[in-house]
Amino acid sequence: MDRLEQQIAFIMEIDQSKRVGRQTYLTGEDGRKENDAEHSWHLAIMALLLSEYAKEEVDVLKVMSMVLIHDLIEIDAGDTYAYDLAGNETKKARELKAADRIFQILPKDQGDYLRSLWDEFEEASTPEAKFALALDKIQPVLLNDATNGRSWREHGIKASQILARNAKTPEGSETLWAFAENKIKENIKKGNIIDE
Amino acid sequence: MDRLEQQIAFIMEIDQSKRVGRQTYLTGEDGRKENDAEHSWHLAIMALLLSEYAKEEVDVLKVMSMVLIHDLIEIDAGDTYAYDLAGNETKKARELKAADRIFQILPKDQGDYLRSLWDEFEEASTPEAKFALALDKIQPVLLNDATNGRSWREHGIKASQILARNAKTPEGSETLWAFAENKIKENIKKGNIIDE
Repeated sequence: MDRLEQQIAFIMEIDQSKRVGRQTYLTGEDGRKENDAEHSWHLAIMALLLSEYAKEEVDVLKVMSMVLIHDLIEIDAGDTYAYDLAGNETKKARELKAADRIFQILPKDQGDYLRSLWDEFEEASTPEAKFALALDKIQPVLLNDATNGRSWREHGIKASQILARNAKTPEGSETLWAFAENKIKENIKKGNIIDE
Repeated sequence: MDRLEQQIAFIMEIDQSKRVGRQTYLTGEDGRKENDAEHSWHLAIMALLLSEYAKEEVDVLKVMSMVLIHDLIEIDAGDTYAYDLAGNETKKARELKAADRIFQILPKDQGDYLRSLWDEFEEASTPEAKFALALDKIQPVLLNDATNGRSWREHGIKASQILARNAKTPEGSETLWAFAENKIKENIKKGNIIDE
């Protein structure tokens, strides 16, 4: 198969991200939850608009590329809800297997590049990965806040769980974490998040 | 309102793009049509992977930013189907009004920048805008081809309509247009597109 055919095969394969459901509700009234493609689109625009708040200077193109592709592995591995303990035990193995399959649909140079972006995101050690991870954690806080904590309430989420999940968020952006933390506190007060 | 609050207000406002429906069906069996957020996400990854085929050299970050935000005006203006003649007569006025409202939610520097990106996309005169437009036209061809021409068949689309709509696509990418044109010819043969 020639190079362009491999690229188009990948572009068609990832169409399935539009079917991978997450636990966060959209704003508005119809009660639908968002999917991976929508979530990743939202993060990419956040990366474009909020990079001034990154703790370290970031390459915006790299952050955008990273957030656009960070959930592709869920086409095979599924979305593992942040607070699903059993699911999170097997998550890494399922996602590595998915990465091995999905990125190799591309021509080798591009497959290797996207795989390296995903590995970097997972390792969370570069400025871009730290900032991308902060965006990935903050976006559902914003959507939860805008829907009166609906997903938090439905799952009986505790403040300690959200804080543990966000332990590294300030490493990506102290400013955005301060903003999100304030929203979390407001939702504790409203009873949308359980405060032990 | 301070700068970050304006940025977050915009980020929450554009969540509505996830509800703006298009006429193109997703691949797979459930028969759902895609929305603007999903479509824009798909185009951004295409921009990342296919820029080597742009007719002129492009700034990939700019193309990605452009495709990510090019449909935000449809939050107010709605999606106007490519082959809806009456809708296309009022489209520009509806979209300009929407652009005036939506981009000014942002701090002025960022609102002006996103507005300039959208204007550039609409004017289609720079290498980035031409390539972005080519991607925007080719992506539904790929999805239509992958769903046995479903949206074309449902709307009784003629080859001449598709070719007229793609008159400028080769200006963005001759290689991608050649690929898409071949898919269009295959679908004419299958009877998915009407050949007068």
